[in-house]
Amino acid sequence: MNALPPALDKLATLLSRLPGVGKRSAMRWAFHILGEPSTYAESLARALGELFEHVGFCERCHALAEDALCAVCQDGTRERTVCVVESAQDVIAIEQTGSYHGLYHVLHGVLAPLKGVGPDKLRLDGFEARLRDVDAVEVILATSTDVEGEATALYLGQRLGPTGVAVTRIATGIPMGGDLEYLDQSTLARALAGRRAMD
Amino acid sequence: MNALPPALDKLATLLSRLPGVGKRSAMRWAFHILGEPSTYAESLARALGELFEHVGFCERCHALAEDALCAVCQDGTRERTVCVVESAQDVIAIEQTGSYHGLYHVLHGVLAPLKGVGPDKLRLDGFEARLRDVDAVEVILATSTDVEGEATALYLGQRLGPTGVAVTRIATGIPMGGDLEYLDQSTLARALAGRRAMD
Repeated sequence: MNALPPALDKLATLLSRLPGVGKRSAMRWAFHILGEPSTYAESLARALGELFEHVGFCERCHALAEDALCAVCQDGTRERTVCVVESAQDVIAIEQTGSYHGLYHVLHGVLAPLKGVGPDKLRLDGFEARLRDVDAVEVILATSTDVEGEATALYLGQRLGPTGVAVTRIATGIPMGGDLEYLDQSTLARALAGRRAMD
Repeated sequence: MNALPPALDKLATLLSRLPGVGKRSAMRWAFHILGEPSTYAESLARALGELFEHVGFCERCHALAEDALCAVCQDGTRERTVCVVESAQDVIAIEQTGSYHGLYHVLHGVLAPLKGVGPDKLRLDGFEARLRDVDAVEVILATSTDVEGEATALYLGQRLGPTGVAVTRIATGIPMGGDLEYLDQSTLARALAGRRAMD
């Protein structure tokens, strides 16, 4: 006999659609939620409902925004550099470092010819015009260092050449705390090639 | 600048309260939900809302139930054995084996004197009366094999002695596919002590 109430099964099935979540964890959480005071399930349901109501994307840089423009674009004091990233999460990660004070541009993807993702699928409409509008002095390409991210950076480097704006690529090398012995060859080769004079 | 919209942060904070979920996974899921069509968030919110509306506990055996009685208690064809388990999840796990055809009794806890959980905190009110009502021929104690589960089984074994109903304990031993070499000593000792004649 299937002793599992459909309402519980349905919740577990929906939770198991989250990335990296299996049916077993999802079921455990469904039971956990049922065991908590019902206010927890109510808060969660409300937070889900309010998510799309309150969060959208900045019409200028395509980062997360609660208004038409994101907090960074609304801030007139940011430096005139534009950091190009793949996703809105990347903006948050960089902001959390507290070491970047310029603007962003979120591509919402990377070039992936095999999956049919060409430059037209990225948020690049009017990108050059935006660089002129903000009078950008530098574009920092901060896409991933995997094949697709590298290809995207290469493409943007070539495309932005005629604009005359300085184009840089975020550094690749040994991560902080990294042990040379366990590093993959390509990272090590890149780190050697990218060596800098000691201050 | 904190570029994280409060609505997203709130959802991630609530998700991170699920057991075994860290802030990082919770944040990843919040972004994932935002990236999905809004129908997913809506379905999830609805499933959460319906959970408490549709799922409660059986007034007879305290397993999960959508009505006053659970599906097992409503089924007149079940055998007259009562399997005592710690939680409602255990009922579902045993039902899924398809090898048990009797009734259940969910304690909703185990004895834990150090945490102040005595027999009065378990769902044992009227348990003996229930055994008489269903004319039980056997009580199977299927609490966990940890210290608290064992203590609970011991307590119930003693308490049920005067009822005259046969009381058994679920077998402890080597799990199927288990390798003796890697088993802990207490499991191995139990498995030896519980050896059976070959058929």
